[in-house]
Parts: sequence; structure tokens; C-alpha cells
Amino acid sequence: MSGKLTVIGLGPGHESQLTAQASEALASAQILYGYGPYLDRVPERAHQRRVASDNRQETERASDALMQAAHGASVAIVSGGDPGVFAMAAAVCQAMEQGPSSWRELELAIVPGVTGMLAVAARVGAPLGHDFCALSLSDNLKPWSIVEKRLQAAAAAGFVIALYNPISRARPWQLDRAFELLRELLPAHTPVVFGRAVNRVDECVHITPLSSALGAQADMATCVIVGSSETRLVQRPNQAPLVYTPRSLAASST
Amino acid sequence: MSGKLTVIGLGPGHESQLTAQASEALASAQILYGYGPYLDRVPERAHQRRVASDNRQETERASDALMQAAHGASVAIVSGGDPGVFAMAAAVCQAMEQGPSSWRELELAIVPGVTGMLAVAARVGAPLGHDFCALSLSDNLKPWSIVEKRLQAAAAAGFVIALYNPISRARPWQLDRAFELLRELLPAHTPVVFGRAVNRVDECVHITPLSSALGAQADMATCVIVGSSETRLVQRPNQAPLVYTPRSLAASST
Repeated sequence: MSGKLTVIGLGPGHESQLTAQASEALASAQILYGYGPYLDRVPERAHQRRVASDNRQETERASDALMQAAHGASVAIVSGGDPGVFAMAAAVCQAMEQGPSSWRELELAIVPGVTGMLAVAARVGAPLGHDFCALSLSDNLKPWSIVEKRLQAAAAAGFVIALYNPISRARPWQLDRAFELLRELLPAHTPVVFGRAVNRVDECVHITPLSSALGAQADMATCVIVGSSETRLVQRPNQAPLVYTPRSLAASST
Repeated sequence: MSGKLTVIGLGPGHESQLTAQASEALASAQILYGYGPYLDRVPERAHQRRVASDNRQETERASDALMQAAHGASVAIVSGGDPGVFAMAAAVCQAMEQGPSSWRELELAIVPGVTGMLAVAARVGAPLGHDFCALSLSDNLKPWSIVEKRLQAAAAAGFVIALYNPISRARPWQLDRAFELLRELLPAHTPVVFGRAVNRVDECVHITPLSSALGAQADMATCVIVGSSETRLVQRPNQAPLVYTPRSLAASST
């Protein structure tokens, strides 16, 4: 019997934001691998084994899961949000490319999910309604000089910017430095959205003008969305304000 | 009684890729608005009214839905993929900003969904595994010069590029022009993924090197993902090839 590996996106956190396809894939796996807090979101099932690991152990997790699949098991790796966005799908593909040739013959399925920036955007309006980019602020996996270059290129070209992995204990200053760079290129009033745990009990979403945005407003589970010069903040009586980026850009505004 | 407007993401097409939250929101609306082919995906319900409109009528659709909500109805607008990505959420926010003040007091909820690029990426591996951008190739809503500027900025800075609205009868040459520009900045072998109707009966996904990518390979429902210089194509025996962008970027490769 040949095994199978499925990489499953759990969505941004609340169980109602899981797709039916992801629920079915979770139910049919014999072994579940994942970062502990993501596995904790999945209901326990009899006869299903779980292997939790730390969030810095993506490569080992991918290899372990592939090895079990190569031995004939039906294996799943769970990922928060979408597995293809700064998450496990790329780690699995890399392990398949670099590992034993038998791994490349395995059946691989990737189940997409609602990635963090979409959930945060939906909570405040439509900040990603026009061209945007998604950038990991972590310099564990790329040099900081490249992060700066990409931030500047994206802001100068008019992309809204969604920042993943904005801050951590080991990377305390990078988000403040990013805001500093962006303040040189974008208007002071540009809306910045900080969103974490959207739709969960510990949800925390706030909107700040770029001029006063601070790294300390985020933690490692926050997705930060920095508007473009077109992004608008709309105050509403008795309701939270809206942040959106208009779909159209007039020729005169360029 | 005060009304409510919900903007609902239907995901990339197959019903199994809808979230539970979206299903519930669809069931509880009194009136559903949307582009005809999207409404056709939603099961008919007794006592639920549907108002289909053309895909160029986003502004009118948003205003009509807001007007009904302001009259006290529970109204939903459906959107393919995620409503916040080149879709209805921004049109609704803009109508709320510019319309009667009573519209700004309405309860608005946006239900995120799996946007097209995530579904296409999942089908082939993890091309969006590193920094990426999403760009609408339509010059109906912005000048073509801006599209060119953004394509060049994104490719030069090392972003993978997901192209939405790549081609239509009214915009037949833009995608070929985009490939021409990108060929000046990216290696000839850079993988380009064309994906449409992922997981549906008429699914069509193919992978082409940038050197031979053609606009005619896409239609208006295709999402096109152009790799960066880091994106890899992995051939596999007896399985479709994988396309992925490694999570890490070595300092030497910059």
C-alpha cells in the first residue's frame, strides 16, 4: 500500500472558518503532524495519532511526515491559515525535492485555507481591495537587507502591504524599522491595521495612522496591513470605522 | 428594525471549499445579490430572493443591496473567492462612504473565503511560499502605465506575482505584454502557472516556462502565477510536477 500526505489549512482560527474539504481531510488522516497550538484546534479522534512539534521545526516535521507516508500511512500536516502562505506546503515541497526519490512518487494533496491577511482585512473592510503584497518580516530565512528592499519597492509602487511574522522575542526591532522606512514613502495618515485571533475570544484588532504605528502593538500572531496612499479610513456613527482601498485608481493620482 | 449587509466569499468554486461561516451566512439572508454565475453556485432556498447582475455592475449592485438593507432587510452579496480581493467588499465600502449617511450606520459583515491564487497554488505545490503580490491586470480601473510599473517593481524586488483578471475580450493584449516585460527581468525557465476552475469538472491547470508563456493560455477566469527567480519546478515520476518557492533565501543569492 502506498501512503499519502495531505497538507491542510486550518484557516485563521475559528472553526467556522474551516472549509468542508479541510474538515474531511482532517477526519481521514491516520497521523496528524503540526505545531502544537494548531493541533490543539483539531478535535481528538480515536485511532488517530498526533505528533506536535515546535514552530521552528518545519523541515524536520515535513521529513518525518514524508517518511511515515512512504511507509504507507495516510498522513496529514496541519497549518494555520493557508498552508501555501509562509507555512508548511513549501517546506514539504522542498523536502520532497531534496529527499529520497521515493518521496517524489508519493501522492501529495494541499488543502487551501483562509490565510490571516484575508481574515484581518474582512474584519475592518477591504484594505486589500486593490493591488497588494504579502511579505514575511522574518529575517531568519532571508537577509534583512532584502526585507527593506521589498518594503520600499512595494510601497513606492503603490501596493498595500500585508506583513506576516511581524515580531517575536528574537526579532524585537524589525517592525519598528519597517514603519520607519514606510513613513518615508507613505502619507502620515495611511491606515495601519493590526489584527490577531480574528473571530476568536481573544480577538484584538486596531487601526492606527502610520505616523504613530508602533511595533509593540503587534505580537507574533498578528498580521499587520499597511495601506497604500489610496487607502481610506471611513468613520461611522455607532459602528467601527471601515478601512478600504478603492478598486479604481484615477490616471491623475499616479 | 435595522437591516444588515453581509458580503460573502464563496471560495474558488467547489462547494467543499466554502467555509462553514459562509454557508451559514448564505442560509440566513433574505435577499442575495451577485454576479449570475456566482449566484448559480448557491443552492436555491424558499423565501429567499435573488438579484443577479452583470460582472461590470459592482457599484450598482452594492448600492442596491445597501438600499435594501437600509429598508430593514437582511441582505447578502456573494463574491467568488474572497470578497476582499479584487471583488465586492471594496465596492461596498466605497458605496457606504459616498452614499447617504444612513448607509454608514448599517451593520456590515464580511465573510472571507479562499481566494483564487491560494487554490491554484495548492493544486501545484507552493508557488506562493515566499513573498508575493497580487495584481489585477485590468486597466479598466487603473491606467496601464501603473500596471507596467507594478509588474516591474514586483519582479525586480523578487516577489512572486499572482495575476487576477489576466485577459478578456475587451483586453486581449495585456497579458502578452506583461509576459514580455517580465521576460526582461526574470530567467527564461521561471515557472508560470495557469489555473482555472480548480477542483471543478472543467479544471484546467498547466505549467509553462516564462519563455514560452502565452496570453492565449488564459481566459478571464484564470489566475496566473508567475514565479520569482527562486521558484523551482520539481519533476516527479508518475505524478504531476511540483512548483514551489523556497521559504528561505540565502544571502548569497541576492
